Amino acid sequence: MRIVILGGDGFCGWPVSLKFSLENHDVTILDNLSRRNIDNELGTNSLTPIKSIEDRINSWKKLTGKNINFLNINIANNLEKLISIFSEIKPDTVIHFAEQRAAPYSMKSVYHSQYTVTNNISATHNVLIAIKSVIPKCHLVHLGTMGVYGYDGMEDLKIPDGYLNVYIKNNHDKFLEKKIIYPPSPGSIYHMTKCMDALLFQFYQKNDKIKITDLHQGIVWGAETDETIIHNDLINRFDYDGDYGTVLNRFIIEAACNYPLTVHGTGGQTRAFINIKDTVNCIYLAASNPPDTNEVRIANQMSETFSIIDLATKVSNLTNCKISLVDNPRNELSDNKLQVENKVLSNLGWKPIRLSDNEILKIKSLVDLHVNNINIKKIPAMSCWNLEKKPGIPK
Amino acid sequence: MRIVILGGDGFCGWPVSLKFSLENHDVTILDNLSRRNIDNELGTNSLTPIKSIEDRINSWKKLTGKNINFLNINIANNLEKLISIFSEIKPDTVIHFAEQRAAPYSMKSVYHSQYTVTNNISATHNVLIAIKSVIPKCHLVHLGTMGVYGYDGMEDLKIPDGYLNVYIKNNHDKFLEKKIIYPPSPGSIYHMTKCMDALLFQFYQKNDKIKITDLHQGIVWGAETDETIIHNDLINRFDYDGDYGTVLNRFIIEAACNYPLTVHGTGGQTRAFINIKDTVNCIYLAASNPPDTNEVRIANQMSETFSIIDLATKVSNLTNCKISLVDNPRNELSDNKLQVENKVLSNLGWKPIRLSDNEILKIKSLVDLHVNNINIKKIPAMSCWNLEKKPGIPK
Repeated sequence: MRIVILGGDGFCGWPVSLKFSLENHDVTILDNLSRRNIDNELGTNSLTPIKSIEDRINSWKKLTGKNINFLNINIANNLEKLISIFSEIKPDTVIHFAEQRAAPYSMKSVYHSQYTVTNNISATHNVLIAIKSVIPKCHLVHLGTMGVYGYDGMEDLKIPDGYLNVYIKNNHDKFLEKKIIYPPSPGSIYHMTKCMDALLFQFYQKNDKIKITDLHQGIVWGAETDETIIHNDLINRFDYDGDYGTVLNRFIIEAACNYPLTVHGTGGQTRAFINIKDTVNCIYLAASNPPDTNEVRIANQMSETFSIIDLATKVSNLTNCKISLVDNPRNELSDNKLQVENKVLSNLGWKPIRLSDNEILKIKSLVDLHVNNINIKKIPAMSCWNLEKKPGIPK
Repeated sequence: MRIVILGGDGFCGWPVSLKFSLENHDVTILDNLSRRNIDNELGTNSLTPIKSIEDRINSWKKLTGKNINFLNINIANNLEKLISIFSEIKPDTVIHFAEQRAAPYSMKSVYHSQYTVTNNISATHNVLIAIKSVIPKCHLVHLGTMGVYGYDGMEDLKIPDGYLNVYIKNNHDKFLEKKIIYPPSPGSIYHMTKCMDALLFQFYQKNDKIKITDLHQGIVWGAETDETIIHNDLINRFDYDGDYGTVLNRFIIEAACNYPLTVHGTGGQTRAFINIKDTVNCIYLAASNPPDTNEVRIANQMSETFSIIDLATKVSNLTNCKISLVDNPRNELSDNKLQVENKVLSNLGWKPIRLSDNEILKIKSLVDLHVNNINIKKIPAMSCWNLEKKPGIPK
C-alpha cells in the first residue's frame, strides 16, 4: 500500500510508521513537528532521548534498507499543499494522528483551548477535503479517543463500538428502535475536538462516500514497540510531564525518581487502557482491512479497564513508592464504572496485550536508563479545568 | 439590558437589533459585513435596496432618537479585540448571528466548505472564550437551525426542543432511561457547523457554567418587521438568489418575474417555517428570560411545517405562475414527514404568526416594488451537494 501518515513523528505516529515500512508499505510522513515545539514552549522533554526526524529516518534506512519519506507541512493551514501532496502520492490509506492530543494542554488557558480547536478541526477538515478532491477512494484511518463517550455514563452498560441502539417512544407510545452515534460527553476541549471530528466524518461519509475508520483509543501505556527497539536511534518519545504524560507511564517515572505517585482525587476514576504495541497492531489491522459498510466504521481500541487507584497500587507494590492523593485539577466524576466492548478489532483478529507486573517492570527498566532526564518540576499536573480546581501537587 | 449583537447587519440580526433598541436596550452591533462581501463575490444583491450600516444607524437615530453602536470586527479571527470589547461594554446578553448561514454556499466548493467550518467554529468558540474570560455571567443567545435534526428521522415522533429521552438496554436486558441531545444528522456543511457549535455550547455550559440558549430556527419567510417598515432607510435584506434565498421568498420572487416556481425534486420535502417577525419576537423573549437550568436551553424556533410542493402550490394558486419540478442539487430524501414541538418558546408566551394567503400577498407587494432589481440569472440553485447532483434549472 501507499500510505501517508499525518503526525508520523509523534508518540503513536512514529512506531506506526516503522511498522508499515517494515512490512514493505510505501510510507510518507507529513508532520509539522508541533509536538517538539510544544516541548520547547512548556520547557518539557521526552524522558527518552529522541532523535530528530531526519536522523530517525536515516538510521532506519541504514538499518533496514527501507525508505520513509518525510515532508514538513502544517496540514491545518495549508490545504493547497496537502491536496498537491495527495495528488502526487495517491495514497491508498491516510492515517491521521495530526492533532493536539493532550487534554491538560487544551485546558491550560483560553489560548490553548483556541489553538486545540482551530488546529484539530482544521487539520481533520483539510484531510477530508483533500481526500474528497483528489483521492476519493482512499481509506482514512483516524486516531480518536475513548474520552468521546465520557465517564458520566450508564452503569451496567458495555459501551459498544461507537454506535448505540436506542428505543424512543413515539406519539402513540410505541417504541421505535434507532441506531445512533453514542451520545458524546467530552471531558475536555481536546476530547470535544474528537467529538467534532466525528461529525465531520459522519458528514463526508454520508455525502461523499469517503471510507473512514475512527479508532477510539484508550490511554496508552508503554513506549517501546518491536520496531523502535531495533536501535537507539529509533527510540520512541516517552512523555512524563503533567500535560502530555499518560497516567501509568507517569506513575512509573514517579516511582523511578521516588516522587509520590500522584493520584488525582480518590483515584476512583475508571479508564480504558492499551499498550503502545497494540496501538500499532490495531492500526495495522484497521488499515489492512478497510470497511465496506455504509457508515463510518468506529472501533474501541482498548484492551482492559482499570481504576486509577488500582494502577497506582500495582506500581506502589512493585516499587515501594508511596501514593499521594492530590487535588484533582480536572472536572470529572471522582468515581465511575466503565465497561467497554472491542468487537470490531477483535473480529479482525486482534489479541490484546494485558497489563502485568512484568510489563510494568519492563517499562521501569526503560525509565531507569533515562532517569537523569527527568525534570521533577514538570511532574505535577498544573492545568486546571476551571476556577474551582487546584493543581495536582503532593502535600 | 446591555446587548451585543454579533452579525447585527444581517437578515435576522438587523431587525433584532432595531427591536432591542426600540425597547430601550443599549445595543452594540459587531459585524464584519461579510454578508455584503459575499454578495460581491457571487454577483448577487438583496432584492431590497439596503442602506450601508452607517446610514441605517444614522437614520434610526434621526427617526427614534436612539443610538445603536457599531464596530466592524471579524470575531472569527480577532479574539483579543473581542475580549476587550466585551470587557468594556460588559453586556448582559450576547446574541450570536455571526456565522455563514447558507447551506448551498457551504457546498459550492471545498473552499466554501472550508471557509464555513473555519469561520463558524472560530466565531462561536471565540465568543465562548471571550464570555468565559471577562463576562462569565452573561447570557449567550445563539441562532441555530432546525436542520441539526436532519430529515431522515423518525415518523410519528414530534421532535422535542433539542433533547430526547431514549431507552437503552443494559447488560441485564433492563431499560435505562437517558436524556440526550437529539442525535444530529446535518444535511450540509453549514448545518454540520451548527451541530459542532452544539458541542461547544454543551462543553462550556458544563465546565464553565456559561448560560446559553440555542434557538433551532426553521426556514424564515418574509423580510419586514414592525421596526424595519418605519422608514425606507431601515429596509431589511431580501435574498432571492440560489444560495441565500429561502424557499418561500424565492417562490414569490419567481412569481413576480414570471419565472417558473423551481421545486427541487418532487417537493415532498417537509420543512419547518417561521416568519421574520417571529424571529424577532422569539429572540426577544429568549433574551428577556435567561435560562436557569443546569444545561444548555434549546428551543425549536418554528411555527409550522409545510412540504415544499404545498408552498409552491399556494404561491402558484395566488399568482397563476407555473411550477417546474427541477433537479434537486441537494443530497436529501425526496420525501419526508416532520412534526416539531416548540414548547420552550410557547411557554415563554410566544404566539406564532401563521402563513396565510394574505401574508404571501403582503410579501408579493414588497417584491413587486423592487422587481426590477432581480437578476434572473441568479435565481436557479447552482450549488450541487456532490458529483451525482445537478443544478435546479427549469427545463
